[in-house]
Amino acid sequence: MHAYRTHNCAALRQSDVGETVRLSGWVHKKRDHGGVLFIDLRDHYGITQIVADEDSDALPILEGLKLESVVTIDGEVKARAEATVNANLPTGEIEVFARAATIQSRAEELPMPVAGEQHYPEDIRLKYRFLDLRRETMHRNIMLRAKVIESLRGRMRDQGFTEFQTPILTASSPEGARDFLVPSRMHNGKFYALPQAPQMFKQMLMVSGFDRYFQIAPCFRDEDLRADRSLEFYQLDFEMSFVTQEDVFQALEPVLAGCFEEFADGKSVTPSGSFARIPYAEAMLKYGTDKPDLRNPLVISDVTSHFEKSGFGLFEKIVGGGGRVRVIPAPSTADKSRKFFDDMNNWARGEGFAGLGYVTRKGGEFGGPIAKNHGPERMEELYNELGLGPDDGLFFAAGKESEAAKLAGAARTQVGEQLELIEQDCFKFCWIVDFPMFEYDEEQKRVDFSHNPFSMPQGEMEALETKDPLDILAWQYDIVCNGYELSSGAIRNHRPDIMYKAFEIAGYSQEEVDANFSGMINAFRYGAPPHGGSAPGIDRIVMLLAGEQAIREVIAFPMNQKGEDLMMDAPSAVSAQQLRELGIRIVEPPKAAAAEKTPTGQAGDGA
Amino acid sequence: MHAYRTHNCAALRQSDVGETVRLSGWVHKKRDHGGVLFIDLRDHYGITQIVADEDSDALPILEGLKLESVVTIDGEVKARAEATVNANLPTGEIEVFARAATIQSRAEELPMPVAGEQHYPEDIRLKYRFLDLRRETMHRNIMLRAKVIESLRGRMRDQGFTEFQTPILTASSPEGARDFLVPSRMHNGKFYALPQAPQMFKQMLMVSGFDRYFQIAPCFRDEDLRADRSLEFYQLDFEMSFVTQEDVFQALEPVLAGCFEEFADGKSVTPSGSFARIPYAEAMLKYGTDKPDLRNPLVISDVTSHFEKSGFGLFEKIVGGGGRVRVIPAPSTADKSRKFFDDMNNWARGEGFAGLGYVTRKGGEFGGPIAKNHGPERMEELYNELGLGPDDGLFFAAGKESEAAKLAGAARTQVGEQLELIEQDCFKFCWIVDFPMFEYDEEQKRVDFSHNPFSMPQGEMEALETKDPLDILAWQYDIVCNGYELSSGAIRNHRPDIMYKAFEIAGYSQEEVDANFSGMINAFRYGAPPHGGSAPGIDRIVMLLAGEQAIREVIAFPMNQKGEDLMMDAPSAVSAQQLRELGIRIVEPPKAAAAEKTPTGQAGDGA
Repeated sequence: MHAYRTHNCAALRQSDVGETVRLSGWVHKKRDHGGVLFIDLRDHYGITQIVADEDSDALPILEGLKLESVVTIDGEVKARAEATVNANLPTGEIEVFARAATIQSRAEELPMPVAGEQHYPEDIRLKYRFLDLRRETMHRNIMLRAKVIESLRGRMRDQGFTEFQTPILTASSPEGARDFLVPSRMHNGKFYALPQAPQMFKQMLMVSGFDRYFQIAPCFRDEDLRADRSLEFYQLDFEMSFVTQEDVFQALEPVLAGCFEEFADGKSVTPSGSFARIPYAEAMLKYGTDKPDLRNPLVISDVTSHFEKSGFGLFEKIVGGGGRVRVIPAPSTADKSRKFFDDMNNWARGEGFAGLGYVTRKGGEFGGPIAKNHGPERMEELYNELGLGPDDGLFFAAGKESEAAKLAGAARTQVGEQLELIEQDCFKFCWIVDFPMFEYDEEQKRVDFSHNPFSMPQGEMEALETKDPLDILAWQYDIVCNGYELSSGAIRNHRPDIMYKAFEIAGYSQEEVDANFSGMINAFRYGAPPHGGSAPGIDRIVMLLAGEQAIREVIAFPMNQKGEDLMMDAPSAVSAQQLRELGIRIVEPPKAAAAEKTPTGQAGDGA
Repeated sequence: MHAYRTHNCAALRQSDVGETVRLSGWVHKKRDHGGVLFIDLRDHYGITQIVADEDSDALPILEGLKLESVVTIDGEVKARAEATVNANLPTGEIEVFARAATIQSRAEELPMPVAGEQHYPEDIRLKYRFLDLRRETMHRNIMLRAKVIESLRGRMRDQGFTEFQTPILTASSPEGARDFLVPSRMHNGKFYALPQAPQMFKQMLMVSGFDRYFQIAPCFRDEDLRADRSLEFYQLDFEMSFVTQEDVFQALEPVLAGCFEEFADGKSVTPSGSFARIPYAEAMLKYGTDKPDLRNPLVISDVTSHFEKSGFGLFEKIVGGGGRVRVIPAPSTADKSRKFFDDMNNWARGEGFAGLGYVTRKGGEFGGPIAKNHGPERMEELYNELGLGPDDGLFFAAGKESEAAKLAGAARTQVGEQLELIEQDCFKFCWIVDFPMFEYDEEQKRVDFSHNPFSMPQGEMEALETKDPLDILAWQYDIVCNGYELSSGAIRNHRPDIMYKAFEIAGYSQEEVDANFSGMINAFRYGAPPHGGSAPGIDRIVMLLAGEQAIREVIAFPMNQKGEDLMMDAPSAVSAQQLRELGIRIVEPPKAAAAEKTPTGQAGDGA
């Protein structure tokens, strides 16, 4: 007989009754019924009920054991009496009568319970993560994560991709976020950096002639932490050669849709091939964001032209000053009180906006100051144009275009949530496309890259040479699910001549480009294929599928929000000898210092 | 038609003749036959021959192109004339007559050629790795690596393992090798460390109740580099709960044997279930090493007792002083000259040994000073005992036991190679088991751990309390293939009481253990399962399968032996602002400093 188990704790069934078995696991629960002891014995696979009574040598051993001790039980499988069958448990028809018990590991008093799902403070959970991970939800989340990643891997291979590892000790790069640095012992005074993303390497793989790369890639950014961001995170990083934007979409849609369908647990998923493609400008207009949650049926409209000569002076003034008026329908709100509308206005002010105007309507009758000043006929006209009915309200976001869009977007979400219009139990995907290549930087009074300087401009060199820079679009795209940006991506600029020209438009000389991006530029001088890719965030995908709100719920050993691993005690002090070998010394905490100007941008994919 | 290709460069066949196609790829080779230009167009998948003549608009475009430029060809598939069919190429029956050509990327003069396999200095190859990786052997090696890893993953899953990611930013640990440190910006003066192996975390996963973990895990050691070691390397890291050593073997053998069979390219592989288990002491005797190459049929014997009263005074003296005499057969060497034997002796001296004695034999006649002094009758007796024949020579390694074993082991390899006895075209696996738990440290005059302090001693607490420490064996094992150690592994000590006792024997107090290993010890206080695992080195496995001698040949973007990434320019200088944020300053290069004493050992698996 095996030293520890003949079966795991999820294996035994009615058909095993009468068998002599050996089980090992953790003491999940104990119930002492006066001389009869019941134990729920738990392992990775499940739970089996153990019984011991005064006939059994195991009783005195088990009686004294604390919860979460590890024990090996020798016993016989018995059928449970019908009244005690537990239909919720795969092993619920049987129990094991313990003949002998061997303690493998005796637990001390626990700092937090395992059985049940009581709320516990995060710092305790992270310090005793090995207990937290035994809990049902965390255990399931981490297993889900593993299965999601396995599914993504298989689906990427089905699309013809091959997984390669790229270096983790690499060069510091002048990208958007802050690098983690690693002092070099062999080259004192020099530093490696951990990759913010394997962006350079995946492009190098394309230049090296590998056609379709992917990697479940660890990435590192030394940025302050949020619920959905950690110092160390994983991306489904991929890149393809000889492709257009449409090829990238066709490769990724089956992977994401397939994976989500596999783990959506009954929720609907946008089918592969049906992901909406929404131009950036349209997204900003209709959803007030480039991360639209398409589960929300509300769509924003621009009604600026209606208010050029309105009786509502505030809007007339805004429009006269070049501003925009955007509206968000509030369908079937005839029975909503004035308070509902006023609360929305107060919410907007609380978010830092000037305010959210509104029109109420009940049985065709308009209410509120905007309607009064604008006049019912013109409101009727507007309503007809928007296709709104006699009991629909309307919210107004007005101001400078970017402000109006932002407020309208936030209000769209707020109205959708308040009216419970957000479709539940679904994952809705879309691509945001046609991002502008350049934007006008109001502060610096100059044209700059709006997103990624390394994307190929649509129209390539001809566009750069002939078009107004602010009209040039990029082959750049984001993938969005339920309002979460899973990743950006792009068809890359693989031509040094086009890259120099694009940087020139943004005000950088060829020398500056060479100084900062020589690795990439040099590689492109020796035959580079057209290529593109993206890098959906794994942690965020798992978070969505697990229905969790924080990334730490889907990572086995996360840091807390201060960047500390409380279980391992990291970061920690190191020895003087270690510092000597690295040729560094610790100095006083730094003063806040102004950022140095370098040609910068989000060179890496990912959210 | 697709913007870049209707087919890849390996796709077209006789059956496609007459089709209009579009191909994209690199200009691999060009042959100009006076008005007729032949181009080998290469992509990731293969090579297709392109033809252009004066009838084609493509000719002037292609004529001017340098090798490795990237081009898109529109043309027609034509059958090659029978005389020009290339049977070595899957596309060798056809060629594409180019009607039009579009340059995607114009290559400059190359720093190293791609076509052909000319030897090039490593520094050039690494600086221009994107060219080096286009070369046939490197491209194949990197693809092999990807396939091996995919195979290992699938086989681990077949054994019931699940892949989890463990943190890369973690705590510095007092283990065998030197950590890479990462200064913390949020906690100035403190440091994260990169994991030498996910040893702590995989054990934590077991304590967290996950039953079978694996990971293709990146590991980091700041040690000086060798051909088979890099700063960053990958292990097939795994761990299992409720297992004995035998369970670990039964889980890993099908994975390794299966993977090797899949990629051995006709070479034979030790079948799963047949890996030899060789006790450490036996390995040291029979092979003179704990990393025996079983392809070598030679086996060392201890013949010390024969020389207790030998006429050969040197051996008699060595034996009298407690030394050992070991012999390595040199079968069928009757026709070898005296020079062959003398060269072996010189080789041994060159390696720093005192010398390698020998006996020659031809038609039953012994030769050489040892035989002369020892006498032919007693030599005959020795030969009979060893099962040697009338034309077999014999080499002698004598000295202190460890010296004799080491020389005998080296001589066994040397004799095997010289006599061409090493079996080719096979992968021979074995386990080395029963390592001693403790050893006597001659310098420090005390008992210390001989390998891994965290392995479970055989016999557990009882052995520690009752046996001579030097007689206690550990549940520790190495997996060896063709003389390469792929990994060590162990059944872990999961019991704090046994761990304190083991450390006490090695001279460490409970306080010292708690101070250095609190994370592990604390976790074991709340219910830890018996567990064990190992971590075969991925890079070394791929190196073996690819038949390469250096790890850099199977890593896409390796560093050079000075720890530099010549392509990305890492490590490199960083800005003053970066250092300020991290609260560190660069100081003068360090003086050599003595190592500080801490309880230490190879806590991680792996070679």
